[in-house]
Amino acid sequence: MSNTSILSTLTNHQVRLASRPVGLPTRANWAFASEAVAEPAEGGVTLKALALSLDPAMRGWMNEGKSYIPPVGIGEVMRAGGVGQVIASKNPAYAVGDQVSAGFGIQQYLTVAQADLKRTAVSKIDLKLGSLTQWLNVLGMPGMTGYFGLMDIGQPKPGETVVVSGAAGAVGQTVGQMAKIKGCRVVGIAGGAAKCDWVVKELGFDACIDYKASPSAVREGLKAHCPNGVDIYFDNVGGEILDHVLAKITRGARIIICGAISQYNNTTAIQGPKNYLSLLMNRGMMKGMVVFDYADRYHVAIAEMAGYLKDGRMKSKEDIVHGIDTFPEALLKLFNGENFGKLVLKLAD
Amino acid sequence: MSNTSILSTLTNHQVRLASRPVGLPTRANWAFASEAVAEPAEGGVTLKALALSLDPAMRGWMNEGKSYIPPVGIGEVMRAGGVGQVIASKNPAYAVGDQVSAGFGIQQYLTVAQADLKRTAVSKIDLKLGSLTQWLNVLGMPGMTGYFGLMDIGQPKPGETVVVSGAAGAVGQTVGQMAKIKGCRVVGIAGGAAKCDWVVKELGFDACIDYKASPSAVREGLKAHCPNGVDIYFDNVGGEILDHVLAKITRGARIIICGAISQYNNTTAIQGPKNYLSLLMNRGMMKGMVVFDYADRYHVAIAEMAGYLKDGRMKSKEDIVHGIDTFPEALLKLFNGENFGKLVLKLAD
Repeated sequence: MSNTSILSTLTNHQVRLASRPVGLPTRANWAFASEAVAEPAEGGVTLKALALSLDPAMRGWMNEGKSYIPPVGIGEVMRAGGVGQVIASKNPAYAVGDQVSAGFGIQQYLTVAQADLKRTAVSKIDLKLGSLTQWLNVLGMPGMTGYFGLMDIGQPKPGETVVVSGAAGAVGQTVGQMAKIKGCRVVGIAGGAAKCDWVVKELGFDACIDYKASPSAVREGLKAHCPNGVDIYFDNVGGEILDHVLAKITRGARIIICGAISQYNNTTAIQGPKNYLSLLMNRGMMKGMVVFDYADRYHVAIAEMAGYLKDGRMKSKEDIVHGIDTFPEALLKLFNGENFGKLVLKLAD
Repeated sequence: MSNTSILSTLTNHQVRLASRPVGLPTRANWAFASEAVAEPAEGGVTLKALALSLDPAMRGWMNEGKSYIPPVGIGEVMRAGGVGQVIASKNPAYAVGDQVSAGFGIQQYLTVAQADLKRTAVSKIDLKLGSLTQWLNVLGMPGMTGYFGLMDIGQPKPGETVVVSGAAGAVGQTVGQMAKIKGCRVVGIAGGAAKCDWVVKELGFDACIDYKASPSAVREGLKAHCPNGVDIYFDNVGGEILDHVLAKITRGARIIICGAISQYNNTTAIQGPKNYLSLLMNRGMMKGMVVFDYADRYHVAIAEMAGYLKDGRMKSKEDIVHGIDTFPEALLKLFNGENFGKLVLKLAD
């Protein structure tokens, strides 16, 4: 069961938070470190990271102050989910070679004590249901976020109009495809013609608005593509776009607040939605969500969406960058809109 | 059944909208007019207004543009609810002397055709359940707003902390007292020591924050009086106060957006809630409401709250101003916070 002999030959390269960023994170906010790989204690396992998930939420974790989870401490390994394999095990539930997802952090190896297996979210994954990177995308946290936000809060009904921002991103692609499967009209909002083309032609969205096309693109696009208004808005971006959508909601509309990537690197106050009183006129609801709340039902969403991946009703796109050294710059792709699909940092094959 | 002979001797004084205000309405936005009182046609009634309801929502009705109801047109009698009595009837369902509530408008008399009885919301009221002015307050639109907003959207549970702004106003007093009856801790926010004293000492709120006391009064008051955070916020005011409360909400909090009186006379853009991402962290919900949606259940709320008025568990306070000529200045009391209790324009005894 155990295979610890090789561990002493390995070095674990890591990225630690060196200082809290003001605005966009820079290389100066990170410290590269390396340490020996620890042997697992009785009941523990050692994991090798193959691919790590880079997510907009990471920016929030770098800030001080109360949030839905504590911030990453200065000097700590940067928090990140990932997928990898068991390379040493003193736990009968895990065999060397098993594929797992876990809260790896930005590092190559992770030794987890038995008592920490749950807190570290170590969980076996089945590559028959989806590829390694799909387990970071539609079958991972972004997929769970999109699925439960749309289904539980949005409660889509056939024929309703669903708008999703960050449409080509990890959460957005799940939201839009699920909404199509549930019989909705789906309008994406994304940056650039390539992303817009992809969500329409490959994912089957009814339309996609390129918010970078012109200052009035979102307003005009919503008018053109949502003739009956917006019944559900899945918001990943906040800012001006949220205001434009608020101006178009229907009576009883549901807005899922999943994130506000346009605001995460602000050095001034967050921009609040000036049009929030549209919620009053339209009896609309705006509700925030954190995916962890749905952990006991992940298996339901995974089973359903793995079926769609298999029968071709869902597709996925991952934007893969390579090597732990590229992490500081790779992360920025999320904030300048460069990433096209779920951003994944691949560490090994 | 009919008593139309006196109608020809009467003059109906009215206030009509002369122009749309920019910022606070001034006397120049109003036109005083008078006309003869029309005889009711077969099936119709003529009503004499005894007291009219002055409400923050009126400011919105004066603006052009889409809202939950059409704006008042230039030259039209200003929209207002009121209570009065039947003075002529050609409808067997209404006898001369019957007390009614109706969409009177700011005028002394109203003749309603049979086809318009429903649209004008003509409805008999029972003075055994509450006084004439209570029918404009806790048993009227403000009371219905407070009741259904709190009960349907807020869904208060015993022991939860409920915060209500505009606490001494018409909606606020209903919300706070209902929340106390449902076993909640209730913290009001109101302007001035007199209002705060009243909601605590007379209405039994647990605490009240005088937002005028100092620039930090709301922040400090919420910290002092909501040690476990805010589970339900009933928002009548918007602006900074909404942001302060957002910073204190608990997980799963419900925010009822009923109004935003702080913003109604803005000449610049509405101030959006900068702290709206607290909804995300806390899985909070913000939902708008319009009281008309609950019309088919008004009788339930009236029956329940009339019982509380009778057994002394609810009190009500109306701020009564006299005479149709005072309307332009009386309305402003709502926006400078001068009114203390439900603002009522009394026209006759």
